[in-house]
Amino acid sequence: MRRSQILIPTLKETPADAEVISHQLMLRAGLIRKLAAGLYTWLPLGLRVLRKVETIVREEMDRAGAQEVLMPMVQPAELWSESGRWEQYGPELLRIKDRHARDFCLGPTHEEVITDLIRGEIRSYRQLPANFYQIQTKFRDEIRPRFGLMRGREFTMKDAYSFHADQESLQDTYRVMFDAYSRIFQRLGLEFRAVEADTGSIGGSASHEFHVLADSGEDAIVYCHQCEYAANLELAESRPAPLPCDAPMPAQKVTTPGIRTVAEQAQMLKLSHDRIVKSVVVMADDQPAALFLLGDDELNPIKAARALGAKQVRMAEAAEAETATGGVVGFIGPVNLPEKLRVLVDQRAAAACNFSSGANEKDYHWINLNWNRDVPLPETADLRNVKAGEPCPRCAGNLGIRRGIEVGHIFQLGDKYSQALHASFLDEQGQERIMRMGCYGIGVSRVVAAAVEQNYDDKGIIWPQAIAPFDVGLIAINAQRSEKVMAAAETLYDRLRDLGFEVLWDDRAERPGVQFAEMDLIGLPHRVVISERNLEHGLLEYKARVAAEAELLTLDAVLERLRT
Amino acid sequence: MRRSQILIPTLKETPADAEVISHQLMLRAGLIRKLAAGLYTWLPLGLRVLRKVETIVREEMDRAGAQEVLMPMVQPAELWSESGRWEQYGPELLRIKDRHARDFCLGPTHEEVITDLIRGEIRSYRQLPANFYQIQTKFRDEIRPRFGLMRGREFTMKDAYSFHADQESLQDTYRVMFDAYSRIFQRLGLEFRAVEADTGSIGGSASHEFHVLADSGEDAIVYCHQCEYAANLELAESRPAPLPCDAPMPAQKVTTPGIRTVAEQAQMLKLSHDRIVKSVVVMADDQPAALFLLGDDELNPIKAARALGAKQVRMAEAAEAETATGGVVGFIGPVNLPEKLRVLVDQRAAAACNFSSGANEKDYHWINLNWNRDVPLPETADLRNVKAGEPCPRCAGNLGIRRGIEVGHIFQLGDKYSQALHASFLDEQGQERIMRMGCYGIGVSRVVAAAVEQNYDDKGIIWPQAIAPFDVGLIAINAQRSEKVMAAAETLYDRLRDLGFEVLWDDRAERPGVQFAEMDLIGLPHRVVISERNLEHGLLEYKARVAAEAELLTLDAVLERLRT
Repeated sequence: MRRSQILIPTLKETPADAEVISHQLMLRAGLIRKLAAGLYTWLPLGLRVLRKVETIVREEMDRAGAQEVLMPMVQPAELWSESGRWEQYGPELLRIKDRHARDFCLGPTHEEVITDLIRGEIRSYRQLPANFYQIQTKFRDEIRPRFGLMRGREFTMKDAYSFHADQESLQDTYRVMFDAYSRIFQRLGLEFRAVEADTGSIGGSASHEFHVLADSGEDAIVYCHQCEYAANLELAESRPAPLPCDAPMPAQKVTTPGIRTVAEQAQMLKLSHDRIVKSVVVMADDQPAALFLLGDDELNPIKAARALGAKQVRMAEAAEAETATGGVVGFIGPVNLPEKLRVLVDQRAAAACNFSSGANEKDYHWINLNWNRDVPLPETADLRNVKAGEPCPRCAGNLGIRRGIEVGHIFQLGDKYSQALHASFLDEQGQERIMRMGCYGIGVSRVVAAAVEQNYDDKGIIWPQAIAPFDVGLIAINAQRSEKVMAAAETLYDRLRDLGFEVLWDDRAERPGVQFAEMDLIGLPHRVVISERNLEHGLLEYKARVAAEAELLTLDAVLERLRT
Repeated sequence: MRRSQILIPTLKETPADAEVISHQLMLRAGLIRKLAAGLYTWLPLGLRVLRKVETIVREEMDRAGAQEVLMPMVQPAELWSESGRWEQYGPELLRIKDRHARDFCLGPTHEEVITDLIRGEIRSYRQLPANFYQIQTKFRDEIRPRFGLMRGREFTMKDAYSFHADQESLQDTYRVMFDAYSRIFQRLGLEFRAVEADTGSIGGSASHEFHVLADSGEDAIVYCHQCEYAANLELAESRPAPLPCDAPMPAQKVTTPGIRTVAEQAQMLKLSHDRIVKSVVVMADDQPAALFLLGDDELNPIKAARALGAKQVRMAEAAEAETATGGVVGFIGPVNLPEKLRVLVDQRAAAACNFSSGANEKDYHWINLNWNRDVPLPETADLRNVKAGEPCPRCAGNLGIRRGIEVGHIFQLGDKYSQALHASFLDEQGQERIMRMGCYGIGVSRVVAAAVEQNYDDKGIIWPQAIAPFDVGLIAINAQRSEKVMAAAETLYDRLRDLGFEVLWDDRAERPGVQFAEMDLIGLPHRVVISERNLEHGLLEYKARVAAEAELLTLDAVLERLRT
């Protein structure tokens, strides 16, 4: 493509309202433009990237035996009432009325529509399993759309739904989808992790998220350096080293005036953090609970909610904490808590010996407490955030923590929707049974943004080869003033395209500096520069976008670089 | 693809609510399913057809230098207010409110969005002309969605918009688009006509519609058998043969009791229809007008409206007609009409000699009237429908009339939107000027339905090769009971796919009769049948979908058939 024939409105300045790097660079490189909050137009260059992502996703879904369909974006309310989500779903579901005042919504997801289709078309176990996908426009009315394509309102998604006679079949397809997703992100050329995820409110029995690793990611991901183990911080476990335990020492109440933090306590009492058991009082669905963790551990509220069987957990206000415990904030400890108060101890804190904790009296702490000797050990649970460097729960490796952007999610849905919409089939015995379902999503437009978040430098985007809008950027220095350079550029442009490369030739009469800067911003994997001086020696200037320096090479050597 | 791996829910019975053949066959062949009124899910087989149409459209748009973009489906009301269409557009525009009660609509078309984009990004004549297209989901809230995909609410459309410095450039691109559209419909394998169209309310100075010819089409299309001339009946002209004129005879008022129709008049007065001038009284925007045409001609209300400068024309009620003319219905004629009444004579009727017409008195007609002798010739205009067989207005050929389905439309928009949204550029002299625009649409999902309307028989669909969901249907008779047949089928299936053919192999244990009927219904271009008996002689049964009879052929001969 000649640069003069394609609209790439690059920007020198970073737009003021773009907070994250992908949003900034996608605007600056002329990939997208904003129409309204959370609504973006894909310009020619950006759409080329989106289509390449779509193609890889489609090829791998087809290879995995999924069948492509296309469902409407506008969905009737009746189906959402059947599943119960018309009432349950928040205002992200954009509810609309047609000209006859009938209720519809803009689909943020298609479980209801596909289940309605399948309950009408699949009747026999012989037709199962079956897996259907679409690559389609979705709408979620985010309260505060931001970060460009990372949290837009209208976006492109690949969603797939599988139907099964039994759990075993669901698990088979789930594994096939897991592998397909792994291949997709590998082929996209992105560093990613598949992590065990909290299934949250969607229900079902198993779930993995696929994260593109990037420092700007919203989620912390714990992964093993050695084995395949990876999990969201909310779900991640580790095998922390056992705590050193000296012989039990006599418990003692000591005065600790003004001491409120673990650090102050450790310093005054000359104790390491793993001999301090700190309290965190929370309100679990409005019921107070006292949680105890080691001084150097961090509470994970989602683990706490799960352990307490609560929907939501929040920190208690000071007054709530003191009413619940009868103690004083800063000095709350496990000894002599009210009997009716729910108390949970983190597994690691439960292994502490000769530990210090609050005495539930202002300016007093206990030291040398031991569970079951000085205070009965309450219920224990995993309440803490895993830390980098801790041993993997599955192998002998160590854990690392990286930040990730969620771009894919696979679920075993079970019978949540098939039960509600009564999607049933006749089994081999002629018995009617409810199908089991899985669902599998990839945020296609989000993948594009995540690829930028992972691959950029101070000059601009660095596209992975597989999804770059073009393979090669071609610049001919002062071609407008040199017939020789222009002729060489024409020849090379045709030659490269004949060889199957996608070439963007900046054929405009722009200053070389402008052309170079723009090529770096756009981030094509390869750049080839023709100049009169180098032509004389039969050489071209070649530079990989990731390389620090350009090289002078013969055409054959350039072609070799392009092919690798 | 193995038939067992793809959901093709064919139906034996025609669904009761499907009125047109494409709707019936697309449901019966398992291409689509209805979600709600005017909302359809594309099933795997149907989607394959849709994608093939999309691909051909995309390739030809790219070839014609248009740049692909993708705009949001949800559009902010502000832009539609700027163009004035927020108020003007009827209830087909689905207006919605987001969670913050801001006004949006679901885009039925994208003139406002693209013009808003371009006014921000194109500033100089050097960036013009530019042509942008998208293949995207549209929504029109039809009051009575029907005929399946022919008049759905959500549908796939290719829309393109071009921007120009001047009218000449617009006309150049218009011609390029005309040619691209012609190539697209040729490649799709559809019989079509590009017709001059009434631009209606969209405005602009030139417009062509592209119609797929089919007996069920809503529009009548007049075309020349010899040259390229084609036009909607509303706009079509002809060069009717001159009327024979004998020497003028004396005018005479004759009694014609009870005579009201042209046929009765012709019989009683022994006159041919071209010597009878009949009246049609209409209300043009509530103003009466008397129109006169030859007895064998038919009034075209759209031509009448244009000639009268009226928005709408309807037949007058009897009372309205008599009040306006002072005559009696059945006996209205041009002689002695009220002076203030608007009177128009069709061009052909204006050439009549010695003609008969009503005398504006009950039971009386004039005979042997001649314009300008007996009654002044009023204003003349083309008011009649062209008839098949009449001479072409452009060449010596004859005209034919066929029915068509509108699947494409190209417009020279002029500055309607660029003026309203102030899309301007600086010309070579540095003067700010308003851009000119063209727009170019193809109803992509409608093309699929139109292809069926044009190509079917009593057994089912007959897909044109280019958009058939598969090239070849493969049936292996009783393969489940013959290892030899099954092995031959496997081999042939792999072989054909290796050769690049898309094969649908019905690998189910169904009765041959069921498989044959389904293959005919689905309508793949080629069918190959393997049976034990023919295998013994090294032969396969081959049948083209369009052929009456199957043939027994060697594999090589079959391959030759598939390649043609």
